[in-house]
Amino acid sequence: MKTKPLMKVDEARSRILASMPLMPGEEISIINGLGRVTHSDIISRRTQPPVALSSMDGYAVRFSDVQKIPTKLIRVGSAPAGGAYSNTLNDNDAVRIFTGGPVPDGADTIIIQENVKAESENDGATIIVNKKPIKGQYIRSAGLDFQEGELGIKAGRKLTARDIGLAAAMNVAWVSVRRRPKVAILATGDEIVRPGDNINPHQIVSSNSYTLAALIKAAGGEPIILGIAPDTIEGIQSFFETRIGADLIITTGGASVGQHDLVQKALAKDTFGASGLDIDFWRIAMRPGKPMIFGRINDTPMLGLPGNPVSTMVCGLIFVKPAIRKMLGADITNDNTTKASLLEALPENDERQDYVRAIYFINDAGSKVVKAFDRQDSSMMKFLTHSNCLIIRPPFDRSHIVGDEVEILEFEEGF
Amino acid sequence: MKTKPLMKVDEARSRILASMPLMPGEEISIINGLGRVTHSDIISRRTQPPVALSSMDGYAVRFSDVQKIPTKLIRVGSAPAGGAYSNTLNDNDAVRIFTGGPVPDGADTIIIQENVKAESENDGATIIVNKKPIKGQYIRSAGLDFQEGELGIKAGRKLTARDIGLAAAMNVAWVSVRRRPKVAILATGDEIVRPGDNINPHQIVSSNSYTLAALIKAAGGEPIILGIAPDTIEGIQSFFETRIGADLIITTGGASVGQHDLVQKALAKDTFGASGLDIDFWRIAMRPGKPMIFGRINDTPMLGLPGNPVSTMVCGLIFVKPAIRKMLGADITNDNTTKASLLEALPENDERQDYVRAIYFINDAGSKVVKAFDRQDSSMMKFLTHSNCLIIRPPFDRSHIVGDEVEILEFEEGF
Repeated sequence: MKTKPLMKVDEARSRILASMPLMPGEEISIINGLGRVTHSDIISRRTQPPVALSSMDGYAVRFSDVQKIPTKLIRVGSAPAGGAYSNTLNDNDAVRIFTGGPVPDGADTIIIQENVKAESENDGATIIVNKKPIKGQYIRSAGLDFQEGELGIKAGRKLTARDIGLAAAMNVAWVSVRRRPKVAILATGDEIVRPGDNINPHQIVSSNSYTLAALIKAAGGEPIILGIAPDTIEGIQSFFETRIGADLIITTGGASVGQHDLVQKALAKDTFGASGLDIDFWRIAMRPGKPMIFGRINDTPMLGLPGNPVSTMVCGLIFVKPAIRKMLGADITNDNTTKASLLEALPENDERQDYVRAIYFINDAGSKVVKAFDRQDSSMMKFLTHSNCLIIRPPFDRSHIVGDEVEILEFEEGF
Repeated sequence: MKTKPLMKVDEARSRILASMPLMPGEEISIINGLGRVTHSDIISRRTQPPVALSSMDGYAVRFSDVQKIPTKLIRVGSAPAGGAYSNTLNDNDAVRIFTGGPVPDGADTIIIQENVKAESENDGATIIVNKKPIKGQYIRSAGLDFQEGELGIKAGRKLTARDIGLAAAMNVAWVSVRRRPKVAILATGDEIVRPGDNINPHQIVSSNSYTLAALIKAAGGEPIILGIAPDTIEGIQSFFETRIGADLIITTGGASVGQHDLVQKALAKDTFGASGLDIDFWRIAMRPGKPMIFGRINDTPMLGLPGNPVSTMVCGLIFVKPAIRKMLGADITNDNTTKASLLEALPENDERQDYVRAIYFINDAGSKVVKAFDRQDSSMMKFLTHSNCLIIRPPFDRSHIVGDEVEILEFEEGF
C-alpha cells in the first residue's frame, strides 16, 4: 500500500483552519452573553458617570468656603444617589451628599462625613468642617469611566462576567455574537457500543462522541451526536443521505489505511456519488493521531479522526478547538503553551510530533516542572484524565536529560 | 457613628465558607456532565480492554513459530475490531487482525502488516513474515487501561471533556453530581435602572446583577435575578415577603453605613420581624469592597455586597466564587494566584488588603511581569475589563520598587 509522506502538524492545522466558515451573527440579550464571542464591537450608549458624582458619603461644598478650619456651613439640601439638589450653591452652603449622588452646581469638593460635625440630618442644620480638603476630592467627573460612543468591547472577544457588566453599564442590552457552529459527530466501528447498551466481551464502550461533544461545547460550539455507524459502506453512507445541517462534520475511527477503515471508501465520489467527499487524505506527523482525513462533503468541511480515544482528544485540542474558535472569529493564537523543566529524561523523538500525557506542578523552588506518564498507549484514557498537560515534542527532538526545559500544552478549563 | 474594627479578608472568607450548605446530588446523563461537580466517586463498570486486543493492523501469531526469518505461515481466519476468531491457533497458523481486534487463543504476538507479504486477503493464503518480532508486541493486555470496580473519577471533581470520555469508556452512562446552587441577586438603589430602560440624567445603568449572574454561572451556580429594589425599607422588604427559594442570597448596594444604606435596616429582625436577618455586619479590611453584610435570613445565607461595580466583581471573585465551589463540594484551595514582577513601583499600603486591577504578561526574557492601572476608582469598570489579573497587596504591605515580586490573582475562563 503506497503511503504519502507525513504532513507536519502546523501545516495540517493551517489547512484545516483556512477551510473553516466564519459564523454569522445573531442578536442575544447581554444576560446570555457568557462565553459567547462578539460579532461586532460593543459601543457605549451612555457616558459614565453621566454627571459628576460623589464617591463618598458626606457634604458637597465650595472649596473657597473651607479655607479655614474649623468652618461653619449651613446644610441647604441633599443629593442622594439617583436624586439631585436642583439649586446652585451660594457662599457657605453645604449639600448633604451620598455615594453616587450628583455634585450640585457650584460645589467643587466633597467633605467626607467623618470630617464633619453635623447639628442634625435636617436642612438648615449647621455643620462644622474639621479637616481641610483637597480641591476636587471625592468627585468622579462626568465620563471618568467611559463616554457615549466609546469602544467598549471589540469584536471577536469571548465575553466574560466582567465584559457583561461593562456592556450593561454602557446601556447595551442586546449584543450581536457569532452563532455557535454546529459540529456533527459520527463514531464508526462494529467494536463500539453506547454506554449502558448491551455489549459483548470483545466490544468497547464508545467514548469519543461524548469527549468530543464536551470539547466542542467548551470551545463554544454546539455538538450534534449522530450515533455509531457500523463498519459497512452502506452503514456509513446512510448517515450522509440527508442534509446533516452542520458547519463541520467529525468522524472517529475508520480513518486509517486498514481493510476495515471505511470512512473514506464509503464517502468517496466513486462510491457515494457526486456529492461525496472532496478528499484530502492526510497522514500527519503526530503521535497520537497519525491517520486523519480532511475534506469537504456537500460543501461542509469534514474531519476524520482516528478511533483511539486519546488520539481523538489530542486531535480535538490541536485541530477541533482552534477550528471552532476560527469559525467564531475569535483569537486562535493562544494555545496555552508554556515551558516546564523535565523531572525525568526523555529519549530521542522520531519523525512524528509527540503529545505526551504528563503532570506539571510548581515545585518548592517556585519552578514549573513536568513528569510524563511512563505508558503512552493511545487507547489509555485513565492517564489522560490524570494528566493536566501534554508535553509537545517536535519531530526529531533530541533526547533530554532531567532539568531540560520543554514546551507543554496546559489543559484549559473544561478540556 | 461607631465603627467596628476591620475584619481580615481571610477571616471573612472562612466565616462565609463555613456557613455554606453542601448541595445534594442529582443524577444526570454523562453527556450533560461538562462543568458539573461529581457527588460521588465514579467507579468503572467495565474492564478495558475487556480482553487482549491488537494495537495494530497485521497478523496474530505464535511467537514460537517466527523464530526464523523469513517464515511462512497460513492465514486461518480473521479478527476485526469487535469480532473474534473463535478457534485456538495451531502451529504455523496466522490470524488476520485489525486494530482493536481480540487476540485469538494461542496467539501471543502481533506482526504488523508492513512486515508481512500476504498472498491474498483470503483465509488459506500463505503469508511470509519478514521481520523477527518481539514477543508480545502490539498487544494491549486485558485491563491495561482500567479494571471493573476501579475508581475512575473522585467525588468533588469538576468534570472535563476528558473525564466524560473516561466515564463513558467505563460504561457509566449516569452520574450523580451536586445540584447547582441557586443564587438570588437583588440590586438596590434609586440611582440604578436596567439596561435599555428609561433613565434620567442622574441615574446609572445597573450592571452588578448581570456581572454576578455570569460569575455565578461560570462558577457552577444557577443565578436568579430578582430585580432592583428602591431605596425604601418597604421596597427592599417586598422582595423577601415570599420564599425566595435560593441557596444563597446576594444584595448589591445599600451595605454601607450611610443614611441611604438600607439593606440591613430593612431586613433586621426589629424591622422585618422574627424571620429577619441574623446579622453579622462586617467592614472588611479590603479595597475595593469594605462595606459588606453577612448573615442568614429565613435560614438562607445572605451576602450584602457594596454597590460599586468593581467592588462587586472583586467580592464576587474572593467570596462568591469559593462559596459556590464550597456548596458544590469542590476544591476551594486553588485561587489561581501566581507571582509576577512589578513593571512600576507601588507605594506603601494601608490597613486594607488591596486588589489592584492590572495586566500581566510574559516578557521577552520569559518572566511574568505585571503593571497596575494608574486609576483604581471602584466605580470604573473599563479598566476591570482591560485587566487580566488583580495584584493582591496584603494590609500594611511595604512600598515596592520595579522588579519586586508580588502576588497576582489571574482571571480564569469566564470571570
